[in-house]
Amino acid sequence: MTEVATVRRSRITPEREAELYAAVLDLLREVGYDALTMDAVAARTRSSKATLYRQWGGKAELVVRAMRAQKPGVISDIDTGSLRGDLHGLISQDDCVMEENAALMRALAMAVHMNEDLRRAFKDLLVEPEVAEFQAIVRRAIERGEVRADNPALDYMVHMLVGAFATRTMIDERPPTREFLISYIDAVVLPALGVSPR
Amino acid sequence: MTEVATVRRSRITPEREAELYAAVLDLLREVGYDALTMDAVAARTRSSKATLYRQWGGKAELVVRAMRAQKPGVISDIDTGSLRGDLHGLISQDDCVMEENAALMRALAMAVHMNEDLRRAFKDLLVEPEVAEFQAIVRRAIERGEVRADNPALDYMVHMLVGAFATRTMIDERPPTREFLISYIDAVVLPALGVSPR
Repeated sequence: MTEVATVRRSRITPEREAELYAAVLDLLREVGYDALTMDAVAARTRSSKATLYRQWGGKAELVVRAMRAQKPGVISDIDTGSLRGDLHGLISQDDCVMEENAALMRALAMAVHMNEDLRRAFKDLLVEPEVAEFQAIVRRAIERGEVRADNPALDYMVHMLVGAFATRTMIDERPPTREFLISYIDAVVLPALGVSPR
Repeated sequence: MTEVATVRRSRITPEREAELYAAVLDLLREVGYDALTMDAVAARTRSSKATLYRQWGGKAELVVRAMRAQKPGVISDIDTGSLRGDLHGLISQDDCVMEENAALMRALAMAVHMNEDLRRAFKDLLVEPEVAEFQAIVRRAIERGEVRADNPALDYMVHMLVGAFATRTMIDERPPTREFLISYIDAVVLPALGVSPR
């Protein structure tokens, strides 16, 4: 899938692609996933629907790739030498970006329930690659001897982190700020892994 | 609010109330929250809409009270003498009931995003009372000396538990079984609190 996507992507310039993705996210914020149409994306970006379908295959893939492109930073660039440093590095972006991300994720979370296409694209293009990069951080912590390879909390890394993000919104009705997530990592994630947060 | 609700509730028998709540949950499963109408509830239960409104005030309160009534067991009855025992006791129900609960919660989670009334009822009648009862379990663990009163993970008890429940469905696309939740409590929640899971 990645290879096919790369070939398709190469037909437009990176600048044009960034412009298109920004327009898709604007539309997503304005009308939500269900009401977002390829017609509207074509009109907003002055491109033809045929081009959009050729490059992205469909609405689900276009939206998920736009989400992915907008995420600042690349997990695989993070390598601070400690698990605490790496985990904090994952969330070192400013709160405005984070809040915007959370709002987009909330909008999509509902649509994901209803659309099998979107659920698939979301998992294949956004969740799985991030989880794979994330596993590299954890693997290095094990190699350094920071975390025991048989620590049972290792099976729940993603549940802990995504759970904190999701429940902050659901239960506290507050955006998951940088301060909240760092405090959660130090209070919950590191102690569960047997790593001292100091 | 609780006092007013008790007075209202006393006008019908507990059996009739249970019957009504079961019918509301059946309708919720069949059509979802948005399409569920007081007319349909009245027809299904052979009651008058006036009665329903007098007893429950509205759809949001009726649905949330039906959810609450259906939960088996009462948290405040749990007191096993250890934090691990109490936390495991929270989820000692069979997997069918749990899966059914999770399906209802997913249906409601989407509606909660859209309906301010439902969000309010959900928080006041379901989340807050459960959190309060849950805090009693934690308080006893502190009094017994099992958990230090200044353990920073204490602030995130609800995030950890609700997060596990939610992410199991979202990420793994599997129901949060008893086995999963017990394993999560032992691997994450207890170590984060500095309590040995054995």
